[in-house]
Amino acid sequence: MTKKAPSLLQAMPQPAAKLCLDVEKFITQELGFDPAGKELTLAFSGGADSKALFYILLALAPRLGFTLSLAHLDHALRAESASELKAAEALAQGFGLAHYTTRVDVAALSAGLKLGKEEAGRVARLQFLQSLKNSNPQRWIVYGHQLNDLAEDVLMRLVRGTGWPSLGGMQGLDEKHRVLRPLLLTSRADIENFLDSLKTAPPQGWGAEKFNWIDDPLNHDQAFLRNRMRAKILPLLLEENPSFLESIADLWRLAAFDGELFAHLLKGKNKTDAAAALSLPHAALADLPKALRLRLYKERLEALGPGQPLLRNLLNLDRAWEKRKSGTVIQFPGHKSARVERGEIKFSKG
Amino acid sequence: MTKKAPSLLQAMPQPAAKLCLDVEKFITQELGFDPAGKELTLAFSGGADSKALFYILLALAPRLGFTLSLAHLDHALRAESASELKAAEALAQGFGLAHYTTRVDVAALSAGLKLGKEEAGRVARLQFLQSLKNSNPQRWIVYGHQLNDLAEDVLMRLVRGTGWPSLGGMQGLDEKHRVLRPLLLTSRADIENFLDSLKTAPPQGWGAEKFNWIDDPLNHDQAFLRNRMRAKILPLLLEENPSFLESIADLWRLAAFDGELFAHLLKGKNKTDAAAALSLPHAALADLPKALRLRLYKERLEALGPGQPLLRNLLNLDRAWEKRKSGTVIQFPGHKSARVERGEIKFSKG
Repeated sequence: MTKKAPSLLQAMPQPAAKLCLDVEKFITQELGFDPAGKELTLAFSGGADSKALFYILLALAPRLGFTLSLAHLDHALRAESASELKAAEALAQGFGLAHYTTRVDVAALSAGLKLGKEEAGRVARLQFLQSLKNSNPQRWIVYGHQLNDLAEDVLMRLVRGTGWPSLGGMQGLDEKHRVLRPLLLTSRADIENFLDSLKTAPPQGWGAEKFNWIDDPLNHDQAFLRNRMRAKILPLLLEENPSFLESIADLWRLAAFDGELFAHLLKGKNKTDAAAALSLPHAALADLPKALRLRLYKERLEALGPGQPLLRNLLNLDRAWEKRKSGTVIQFPGHKSARVERGEIKFSKG
Repeated sequence: MTKKAPSLLQAMPQPAAKLCLDVEKFITQELGFDPAGKELTLAFSGGADSKALFYILLALAPRLGFTLSLAHLDHALRAESASELKAAEALAQGFGLAHYTTRVDVAALSAGLKLGKEEAGRVARLQFLQSLKNSNPQRWIVYGHQLNDLAEDVLMRLVRGTGWPSLGGMQGLDEKHRVLRPLLLTSRADIENFLDSLKTAPPQGWGAEKFNWIDDPLNHDQAFLRNRMRAKILPLLLEENPSFLESIADLWRLAAFDGELFAHLLKGKNKTDAAAALSLPHAALADLPKALRLRLYKERLEALGPGQPLLRNLLNLDRAWEKRKSGTVIQFPGHKSARVERGEIKFSKG
């Protein structure tokens, strides 16, 4: 069965093969990522995005020289979830691929952690995928997030009060956390067309059912902010501009370029020494323009651990710094804080 | 009658006076604008925003040392519009202020120019206000745009495909075009509360009817993009985050800081020589990061005249430049274009 993979690209209908090559170009050229020799472990739900990405990566693996494997978490929130886990395992086995699956009672976890089910599911997935990363330093986690997800993400960040360039949305490549999102600039419509075209004209010897996908009812639950963005807000914006998703892709690109520029402008301001990283002397800030001071605060806070600083908090910190209001403490998400002191700003966590 | 103005701030209910002082702070501190000795001509429609701004500026004029005057254009689109023009004149006269009014048959202009009525109205207003600016170099045009307008503007720019920092919305201070927007970070709710509080407790000798405002039915016409943003999209975002307007204000501030940073980083790249401004030699671009090249294109294009370049067009130009695709022409709004040539990019208009 593994012999099929090298020829998969040739066996696909032409538009489906083109999509694979567009994704390859995105990975290698736009993201500048070389996956050769790495294990790419796909976070697989069985939905359209991860199902399509599975076949795209299967087609690209021999071209780019990576090993594909599959990870699936059974959230135990729906009756069908146990059989979906079995189907994920069978899919990987059918192509001789490694697979990592586990079952977490997310409802119980949600009650135990006093978190919503959406958030508890996220915690369970992150733990599961983190343990996989820990077990293999050559492993990268690959997510099926696509352009519609990115647009929803940008809107949620806008609503939440995120600054620039974070407003441009989730990263396509996160080297620090070994995360890759190859479909980030591919629209949901293109992904469904990809699967539909393969269903209509499957490679010889393959059944059309290989390209079915699961429509998780939780993706329609209007109790979740992301689903409200998807169902109510995004359609209105697409009505105003049918190319809205392309605009989002462009904005994401600009955010990446600006992120590089800010990193470049702040080079040398970044302390590798852990103790120094927790302090910003007033003197080091005084010769920076406000735009760069705000980004420097952000870098220091992000180095302390997870939790996106809100723009509002960063602006408040800078106002306190401008007035040298010693003793002012600004709180940030993720239990982080910054304190203006006599000669410096001190960052701390916990 | 003019004697009333100096004491207006003291005669107002306390929260209304506070709003005036907040606006003063915004003008002088956040925008860094000193209006002393200038004539501030308010673009007055009679709606809540310009009605409130009229009294706010009336209260601030003696404190900040500017002269207030009023401009009103009768669009002749509604039966009441002629009497609204008379009311605008009477308002200014009542306080001994200069006023400039005119009537344009916008429906006829719309037919003549083959433009929508919204766009034709905009053209008529711009011409009218431009002629007022031409007649007095000390005149600044003051608009009543407020924070809800800014949020709608940010959303429209997002939908349209605008890059950063233009995505942060319209300017509060435009020195080149002598435009000021003192209410830009004041919410519509605060403005209506201001007028309501004055209606409830008017300064001695003033009638409550002085604080009535006109609700223009055109502001509810769902044929206009801005009105759809206002009626359909903004409420959904406010539902997700009741502080969404504050987030927009913060984003606007960040965009202003970033605008200053980009201008600073590009200083020296800006040619004052008109011929040189139309050309960017490849050599001058080669040592710039992509983020700055994109902003340099934008500056050159904006110097050519009105029309906001879309991010998409800027990215396309840079891709063509990166590949040195001589002969590639990229079109921009406002009949502007850029052409990649053998040794340079050439910008032109018309």
